[in-house]
Order: sequence, then structure tokens, then C-alpha cells
Amino acid sequence: MTYAEILANAKVNLGGKCRVCPVCDGRACAGEVPGMGGKGTGNSFKANIESLSSFKLNMRLLHDAKTPDTTIELFGRKMSLPVFAAPVSGTTLNMGGKFTEAEYISWIIDGTLAAGTFPMVGDTAIPSFLTDNLAALKKAGGNGIVVIKPWANESIVEKIRLAEEAGAFAVGIDIDAAGLVTLSLHGKSVGPKTPAEISELRKATRLPLILKGIMTAADARVAFDCGVDAVVVSNHGGRVLDETPGVADVLSEIADQFKGKLVILADGGIRSGVDVLKMVALGADAVLYGRPLVTASFGGQTEGVKLFFDRIAAELKSAMILTGCGTIRDVSQNVIY
Amino acid sequence: MTYAEILANAKVNLGGKCRVCPVCDGRACAGEVPGMGGKGTGNSFKANIESLSSFKLNMRLLHDAKTPDTTIELFGRKMSLPVFAAPVSGTTLNMGGKFTEAEYISWIIDGTLAAGTFPMVGDTAIPSFLTDNLAALKKAGGNGIVVIKPWANESIVEKIRLAEEAGAFAVGIDIDAAGLVTLSLHGKSVGPKTPAEISELRKATRLPLILKGIMTAADARVAFDCGVDAVVVSNHGGRVLDETPGVADVLSEIADQFKGKLVILADGGIRSGVDVLKMVALGADAVLYGRPLVTASFGGQTEGVKLFFDRIAAELKSAMILTGCGTIRDVSQNVIY
Amino acid sequence: MTYAEILANAKVNLGGKCRVCPVCDGRACAGEVPGMGGKGTGNSFKANIESLSSFKLNMRLLHDAKTPDTTIELFGRKMSLPVFAAPVSGTTLNMGGKFTEAEYISWIIDGTLAAGTFPMVGDTAIPSFLTDNLAALKKAGGNGIVVIKPWANESIVEKIRLAEEAGAFAVGIDIDAAGLVTLSLHGKSVGPKTPAEISELRKATRLPLILKGIMTAADARVAFDCGVDAVVVSNHGGRVLDETPGVADVLSEIADQFKGKLVILADGGIRSGVDVLKMVALGADAVLYGRPLVTASFGGQTEGVKLFFDRIAAELKSAMILTGCGTIRDVSQNVIY
Amino acid sequence: MTYAEILANAKVNLGGKCRVCPVCDGRACAGEVPGMGGKGTGNSFKANIESLSSFKLNMRLLHDAKTPDTTIELFGRKMSLPVFAAPVSGTTLNMGGKFTEAEYISWIIDGTLAAGTFPMVGDTAIPSFLTDNLAALKKAGGNGIVVIKPWANESIVEKIRLAEEAGAFAVGIDIDAAGLVTLSLHGKSVGPKTPAEISELRKATRLPLILKGIMTAADARVAFDCGVDAVVVSNHGGRVLDETPGVADVLSEIADQFKGKLVILADGGIRSGVDVLKMVALGADAVLYGRPLVTASFGGQTEGVKLFFDRIAAELKSAMILTGCGTIRDVSQNVIY
Repeated sequence: MTYAEILANAKVNLGGKCRVCPVCDGRACAGEVPGMGGKGTGNSFKANIESLSSFKLNMRLLHDAKTPDTTIELFGRKMSLPVFAAPVSGTTLNMGGKFTEAEYISWIIDGTLAAGTFPMVGDTAIPSFLTDNLAALKKAGGNGIVVIKPWANESIVEKIRLAEEAGAFAVGIDIDAAGLVTLSLHGKSVGPKTPAEISELRKATRLPLILKGIMTAADARVAFDCGVDAVVVSNHGGRVLDETPGVADVLSEIADQFKGKLVILADGGIRSGVDVLKMVALGADAVLYGRPLVTASFGGQTEGVKLFFDRIAAELKSAMILTGCGTIRDVSQNVIY
Repeated sequence: MTYAEILANAKVNLGGKCRVCPVCDGRACAGEVPGMGGKGTGNSFKANIESLSSFKLNMRLLHDAKTPDTTIELFGRKMSLPVFAAPVSGTTLNMGGKFTEAEYISWIIDGTLAAGTFPMVGDTAIPSFLTDNLAALKKAGGNGIVVIKPWANESIVEKIRLAEEAGAFAVGIDIDAAGLVTLSLHGKSVGPKTPAEISELRKATRLPLILKGIMTAADARVAFDCGVDAVVVSNHGGRVLDETPGVADVLSEIADQFKGKLVILADGGIRSGVDVLKMVALGADAVLYGRPLVTASFGGQTEGVKLFFDRIAAELKSAMILTGCGTIRDVSQNVIY
Repeated sequence: MTYAEILANAKVNLGGKCRVCPVCDGRACAGEVPGMGGKGTGNSFKANIESLSSFKLNMRLLHDAKTPDTTIELFGRKMSLPVFAAPVSGTTLNMGGKFTEAEYISWIIDGTLAAGTFPMVGDTAIPSFLTDNLAALKKAGGNGIVVIKPWANESIVEKIRLAEEAGAFAVGIDIDAAGLVTLSLHGKSVGPKTPAEISELRKATRLPLILKGIMTAADARVAFDCGVDAVVVSNHGGRVLDETPGVADVLSEIADQFKGKLVILADGGIRSGVDVLKMVALGADAVLYGRPLVTASFGGQTEGVKLFFDRIAAELKSAMILTGCGTIRDVSQNVIY
Repeated sequence: MTYAEILANAKVNLGGKCRVCPVCDGRACAGEVPGMGGKGTGNSFKANIESLSSFKLNMRLLHDAKTPDTTIELFGRKMSLPVFAAPVSGTTLNMGGKFTEAEYISWIIDGTLAAGTFPMVGDTAIPSFLTDNLAALKKAGGNGIVVIKPWANESIVEKIRLAEEAGAFAVGIDIDAAGLVTLSLHGKSVGPKTPAEISELRKATRLPLILKGIMTAADARVAFDCGVDAVVVSNHGGRVLDETPGVADVLSEIADQFKGKLVILADGGIRSGVDVLKMVALGADAVLYGRPLVTASFGGQTEGVKLFFDRIAAELKSAMILTGCGTIRDVSQNVIY
């Protein structure tokens, strides 16, 4: 199976919910929530792409980084790449419904693990989806992270317990889902969290705790002060608040203040290995892949996901050679023009 | 009735005078005055959209603003939202003429009041239109503001008397109409106002006096010195002078100097609840909705107008949650990236 | 005849050489020299439009400039508007050839004079065209300016004598024509001028001497030092050197240094009365209209040219009212946002 | 044969591998490697065009540079123009394969020499291509430069010997080919070079040594310290690393530090004589033409290449007249607006 075939299959299997555009930039699907698009004008989705593209790379060839090492270690796990599968859910509501949530998540989990890195599995308005996801994760040895919606704390803690049982090595809350229309359509109550509530959740588990949806240094400060382990700099793919800056725009400021104090993950608009390199250069410890894995899995199931990560690995390695980075640790602000 | 149905109806009922574009940005209708467009190149209309879009929002989720309060008080009235209906008139000349001025204004007034906020009703080259509008306003308890064209002062004062009789709680002059082609087509004489003339108008009524069409801090200074109560930062939707900056471009400078001294309203390019939040963050006390209410009323009459404001209210509330603003007073420059 | 009819006629009569686009911005005709386009990529033509558009206007309505005076005096002549007809020639080579040079120039001269301002008439590779133009100018009382190509000085002086005989009140050299392909196609030798050559030309006539094609303060300095009376800031409509800045980009710097010492005229991309106001605000004493008069004359002959200037006069007057300028002398940098 | 005919022929002969777009800017062919495009998004190719276009020229006409001299001397050779043919190879893989590598290179070599300047001939994954190229070069008196891929040093030295035998007057390594997919498709091993390896190559020949693919002052520093004679500032036409800046963006910084110490050549996005002038003004001693010569040769063989250079010569001369540059040495930063 070639990547071109995967994309062709994906186009059919997504039934128009995603057009599988040559460049996935949020234009064609602007406003399609539910669907695969960004909210309102779609500008928050587009800003993720545009902000990344605004950073250019210093090409360098006179050095000894001939065989770069793309591995990292995070949350006590060795990863082949500084890349996670993002917690994307909702096949019926957003992706046309040709495949079940259980089929889809198994492809994501298996393909991601086969590529030597780890999946984040998500939560939705439909309670059974999380339990399905956890079952699949458990079957795969619990090798992943569970990301829970910002329900009332009591409910989150229940779900953290389920994640612990499944063997997840970290748990997260995607607090940005507070603005998700797809949840309110199901009459579910989600919302922001006060520092006190975050502290309570922090105490509720010994697993590393991740907050997804941090877009300011001020919120990163709150997370750090509450003892959170990691933040995901993310605008939820532009699906919750129209007119945010792009993730790459705000990443540097957060990294300048919290690199080494918090694990910093970046999520939004990352399409290629070059984009991974950029995000790491801007301060991310690792990145998340969302929409491209929907395409890869709908087009090629487990093999598609694996093949996508292999492609990213090759691109990242090539980009490291061409910018003179022997290890991920070498990928610094110096790489950015 | 859904909002999508309203738009579909509007497209039919506006008969091509407005294309009801997916994004209402002044491109398709550039130069269409009369019509719904901006003057000349349409760049002043487009600048309203582009300037608003150039400001991005700080998304924040770690706070306690879980149930924001969108109400404000202005001119002694409690409003459900910091939003007015703008004084738009001219169904025949600009909107295709399928509905009468009287039908249209009754939908605007009733829908706006039903949504818990207030209409501004306008004046035109045809004297009977203002009296029709005032009759409709009086029927609705006078709950609104009357905005009069910049005729000779004597004529304005006569119309202020009519507004007082109708029970309006404030009166305004849209001085920017001095450049309106649609007036000169009727051979009507409008023009700028000297400070002395503004002072005379100030003395002519005990109602709050509003000047609409202020685009510089220098003009705001004149208004303040003449004892005017409020200004509307507006380029008349780009319909009078080609090549002005956008309203959001100039708002901050005016607000920096006159916030708290003058009521500051913003009018131009506001499409969503996110745009309301931005304008308030840039210094507006409240905003005006113009073209979107033409669409809403032509597509759904009173119900359409009400439904549009409900939509804006939901969007504004969501945007306040996602930026951590518990009240309209909390919406400050800090919200802007 | 309406202006819309003129444009429709022009489209037919120009036979595709000019598409009479809704916005005349150099895109459709990029590279068409001969023809009506800019050289190469057409970027110099486009830059004229884009640079003008980058300047925005301060709309002001609280003042007493209710009935602006658009007249100026230049070269001892009273003009209804700070506007000249530019010296455009070459109906056969550039405009499709439906009308003769003599027909075309008579419409330009008569229409311009009827509008209360003055034409510049041009020179070409074909010697008879200048004599035809001068005959037409003489018939119109010599009320115009003759602009000669940068031939060898001896040849220029001969042509200056012809211009003097025709009664022209000033003469110019469009030195930028040194790069004109249409001349080299005829094997004619034109070129830059040394300061010594300019001084020689200066001494050759008592008429005011104008240099057209100044795009730097350095060249303006040479012109001033040689005793030249006026410069036309112009890139020859983008037809001689690809990739220059726009005229509006460079105008301020030249005006900052030479306003009041040299008459400063601006030529390039001016389409509306608002554009006239901008150029004057940026430092021009008056502007030149080129391509729009080709359209106006090919579409409406003398009446078309007159009607075009009337339109510009109305737009300029309206723009002066809306920016608070009572006279052309009041149009200063303060008008620019 | 006209240049328009050459382009029309080229379109046919390239069989869709290159669309021969009106403006060759990397959009239509984005991602087509193999093919004629830029890698990935194609943004590195596009950046070459956009960066050049961002620099504008000071048009000047009051000076004595009436008959400019476009010649230079480099590597001990007199050149009619500061222009080389770039080392482009791969007719089968990238250009549709209608013509053989031997046919193509003979046209490039002969046409370039006929125009009074010199070709660089390239190396590919297929060893016979280099020997074919060298045979053609030898036949043409060795009047050219041989550019070798960054193989293991031993292999490079062997090829340098072949180049010496063919009579080449300089040799180069296109180290940026380290990222070339088309090589890895053939299982060939190329890579970056350490300073020690560059020093070794430096000692291996008495010919001037050129490094092609320098995009930072840091790499230029290494080259200089290793005794390299010349660098080609190049991103390999955007074909090796996505998302680099444009060549014109980085050229100034490199020239500021190494002009006069290293011969500085620029390669990327140069389309016209105006572009040559810009690159020289930004600090290049000479430039390379790549893609335009593929079109010229596929459309007009030797005559097409010659005619293309004649066209560039005329454009450069005209641009020098219009910016007041009597010699290439006069083309300085002052020419840039």
C-alpha cells in the first residue's frame, strides 16, 4: 500500500466529511463542526498551518550529523519519534460513520505502537466510547495515554480510575473541550477548571497528569503551580474558539518560561516531519498528530497508521540531516531562520 | 426555523442585492452603492472585516468564569447583550424592495426587543420613512434610539422632537452619512458639522446625544468637548468614503483617550459573538449589528432577528468562557493576543 | 452617456488590447508591452496600485469644510482640479489601432480642456505623431504641455521649438522612456541623461521644464540642481523597468526633500478622486491620469474624457468633505491614517 | 525561432513534467520530486521567487551609464554575463525522458558557450551520466565546471580526476543533494560533509573548489575556513528541504561577511535579467540559471539556450541603464529600494 493509495481510500471512506485536500489547511472544511473543520470562520485551524509555515529553517550541510537519532524518552517511555497520536474521537459525528469507534481506535493504537511510539485515546459525549477505547488500549498492554473531557471533577476521577485499570502510563484532561459544540449537542456539561479543581485532580492519581488546551503562558503558570506534569499547547485543532493564534505562534513564549519544568507537547497543524522539527525547535518536547491519522486510518487501517509514522520518521530524519541535528536534543531555536 | 433556513430565505428575498455569501466580507458586492456593498473598491468595507480578523484571542481555560454574565447597562437601560441593532434603512433602494420599510423595521424592532436588547432606527432621504419608523418604535414602547441624518440643524431639531415624542431614550446623528450617494441621488443636502453646530444640537434635547461616524481621536475630542454623550466608531459600513482603515484598527486609540468619558460604540464588520468580544476588548462599550440583521430579517422576519441575537448571545457566552471573562467588564485588552 | 456605457464601448473599441477590468490593476495585462500592460511580471504596474492602496484615510466629519475648493494654480495656469491628462501615445501599437493618433489626441485635448484642466501630449517613435499632436494642441490654443522622448539633445531641442510654436506652456522629457521596448522596436535611440545634458536642455528654453520618470530623491536632487522646474514621480506605468516600487511608495521621500522647491507631480495607478487626494496628501502638487483616459476616450471620445474628469472632480470633492479639507492646500499628511 | 515558440515546444516536449507556466513559481508543480517541483509543500521553491520579488529597484535616469558593460571575470575566465548554466541533470527521471541526457547536456553546453558564458555540468545516481557529461564538456574544450554529488570522499576524488581530465576549470560539490529523494531512490549514499572531509577534498585538487548548497553564514564560515574558493547560495531549487527561506533572503548576510573572501554565486528563482541585477546587488558575484534552461533546451536545443541567454543579456543591460550601473561592479546595494 502506498501513501497515495491510502489517501485515495480515505477520500472514499470519509464520504465527504473530510475532502482529503492536497494540503490539509482548514479552508475547504471551514466551519464544519461537527465534521473535520475549524469553528466559525475556521481561522483558528488555518492559523495553526500559517503560523508553522511562517517559520523557516536554516539548511546546513557542513557538519557530522550524518545519521541522526530521532528517539526520545518521555513519561519513562522510550519513543522512536517525538510524536504521539492525538486523542481524536467521534467517527459517527465527525468522520461520516463508515467505521465504528472501536475499529478506528484499534487501528490508531496498533499502528502507532507498531511505529514505536504511543497513542493518546480520547473521551466523548457517549460514555461507552471511552470504555471501548480503554478496552482496546488494555488489549495493547496499556501502552498509551488517556485523555478525559473536562466533566465535573467527580466524573473525571472515575474515568481516571478506569484509565489506571487499563494500564495507561499517563492521563490528561483536554480542558479546551469546554467549548466543544459536539458535546453540548449531547447536553453534556463541561467547563473550565479553577486552580483548586486542578489541584484536586492532581492529588487524585499518581500517574503523570497532562493538561491539553494551554494557549498562554498564564495558563501554563497555573498548571505548573498546581503540580501538573505536562501541558499540550493546543487550540483543539481550531474547533472550540474561533480566532485564536496558531499553536506555533504561542509555543515559544510558553517554552521560554516552562521548558524543563513542564513537559511541553504541541498539537495543531503538524503535517510533515519538517513540521515536527519546527515544533521541537520552538520548544516542544514532542508533538501530537490528529487529522492526518484520521486520513491514514480511514485509508489504510493499522497499516496506514504505521506507514504514516514511517513517512514522518523518514522526513524528520532527513530534516535533521539537512539542519545538522544529531539528536532531538540538538534541535534548538538555532534551526529556525 | 434554523439559521441556515433563514439564510436560504434571505438569499431569495434579497433578489441578488445581497448574495448572502458564506463570509460577509464585502468582496462580492464591492462598489454596490446603492445596494449592500462598500463604496468604490469596497476596501473600507473589507477593512472592517480584515482589521477585526487581525486581532487574535488568548484562549484560557484555567479560571472560574464558568457561567458568564453578558448583560450591560447603557443609557440607563439594562441590555441582555452589549449589542444594538444598527440604524439601517432603504429597503427599496438597497435591499431589492421585496418588503416595505415598515415591515422591515417592525421585524428589526420586535426581534431586537425580544432578544432583550435595543434597536436604533434610521432616517432616509424619504421623510415618510422616519415617521413610519417612529410609529413602529412608539408602538414598541419607544424602546430604542433614533439616528437622524446630518441635515441642516433646524431640520435635525424637528426630527429630534419627533423622536422624543416617540419615546426614544437617546438620539443620534450619523454624520458619516454626509458622504452618502444614496442621499445625493434624492437631491438632499447633508454635510459635516462644525463644533458650533454640534453644541447647538447638544442644547436642543435632554436625551443622550450620540454621534455616529467617528473614525479619529481628533473627532472624538470635538464630540467630547461639545458635550456629546456617546460616539459610534463607524465608517458607515464602508459606504461613504473609500479607503478608510477598519473600525477595529482605530477603536483602540479612541478608547485609550475617551473610555469612561464617552460611551464608545463600535460598528463595522462584526459578524459573530467572537467579534463582539474583540470589539469590547478593544475598548467598545457595545457594538452595532447592521448587514447581518438585514439578512436575518429578510430571511426570518421577527423570529429571524431574535434567533440571530440568540446565536450571538450563545457565541459571546462561549467566547467569554474560553477567554476567562465572567462579566463584560472583565473583557479587557488582556483578551487580545 | 453614462460611465458604464463608456466602459462597455471601450471594451469593444480596444479589441482586447485592454480588457477594461473592473479594477485596472495590471494583472490581466501583465507583460503586455506593446499593449497596455506592465513590463515582465507586471509587478511595477501592480506596485502602483498596491502602494496607493496601502495608505488609508482619516475620515473626519466635525469641521467646517462643507464646500471644498478643488482648484489649484500651476505653471501660471488656473486648473479646476490638481489633475493632468498624462502623455500617452501609440494607438496603433498599444491600443489596437481602431482610432488614429490624431482622433485620439483630439478627444484627450478637448475633453481635458472642457473639464477645466490641461493635457500633456506625448511623443513617439513615429515623428509625424508629435507634429499631429502639436497641430491638435495648437488648434486648442496651445493649452497644454508637450512631453518629448529622451532623444539626443539636439533632437529634443528641435522638438522643444515645435512645442513653443504650438504655444505649449511647459515642456517635459519623459526620461523613463529610455527603457521603452516600443521605441527600440523602431530602432530609435533614447537613453539616460547626464546632469550636463539636462543643464543644456534647461538653457534651451524659457518654458518651464519638467522631467518625467523620477523615482528617487537622488534623481530629484540632480533635477533640482540643474534648474529643472518640475518632476513627475513616475515609473512610466510600470512599462520600462520591472520590479520598481510603486509611485506612492517613493513619493513621500521626494516630497519631504523638494516640496516647494520643485513642482512635484505623481503618475501611476491613480484611479479615483480618493487616489488624487492620497497623492496630494503624500506630497504631490498634482497628478497625471494615463490608462483611465485611454478607456474614457476610446469609449466616449471627447465627451467620455470630460465625463471621466467630472466623475473624478465629484469624487475628490466628496473625499475632501469626508476628510475635512477645504482647499487642496489643506490636503496634508494628516489626511493619511 | 522566437522565445514564445521555444516555450510552446518545451511544453510539448516536457510532456507535462513541467507545465511551462507563464510565471515559473513552483505552484503548479509543488511536491513533484521526481519531476520539476519543490519538495513537500513546494514552499522552498516558492520562497526563492517570493524573496527575490520582495526586493524592489531604484529606477534612475539622470546619469552617464548609457552603454553598460555586462562582462565579468571569474575563475580566470572572462564571461559575457555574470551568469552560469546550473548543473541540472536527470532528463528521464525529472523531465519526461523525451531527450537523452547526452542530447540535453550538449545543448546546454553549446548554447551557453555560444552566449559567451559557461556551463556547470552535473552528476547523478547513474554513473554513466557523469561520464557522458564530461565527454561532451571535453568536446567543448573543457570550458565549464563539474559539480559532483556528495558521495564518500574517495568517490568524489575519483570524479574530480575525471573532471580534471576533461579540462574543467573548476569543480564543485552540491552538498545540498544530501537530501535528494531522487538519489535515495537509486539506493545511493550521499550525506553532509564534516569540516575535515571538506579540507581533504580541498587538498585533492588544484582546481578552484566550489560548495553548492550554502544557506547560512555559519556554513559559509566553515567553507572559508576549509580553504574553499566559492560557495553557491542555493537550496537546490527547493528540492531537498521543505520550508527553507529563499536564496535572496539569506544572500545579503552571507555576502556581508564573505564578499571578496569567497566567490559568491546565487542559485534559485532567477528568471529575468532584472533578477540577475537584484542578486548581484544583494552580493552575488554571479548567478546560476536552472529550470529556465530546461525549458529553453527542451524547446529550442542549442539555439534555444543561446537565445535565452541573449534575452537575459538584453534585459540585464536595460536594467543596468535604468538603475544607472555602468559595470557589474557598480551594481551595489544602492540599487535596491
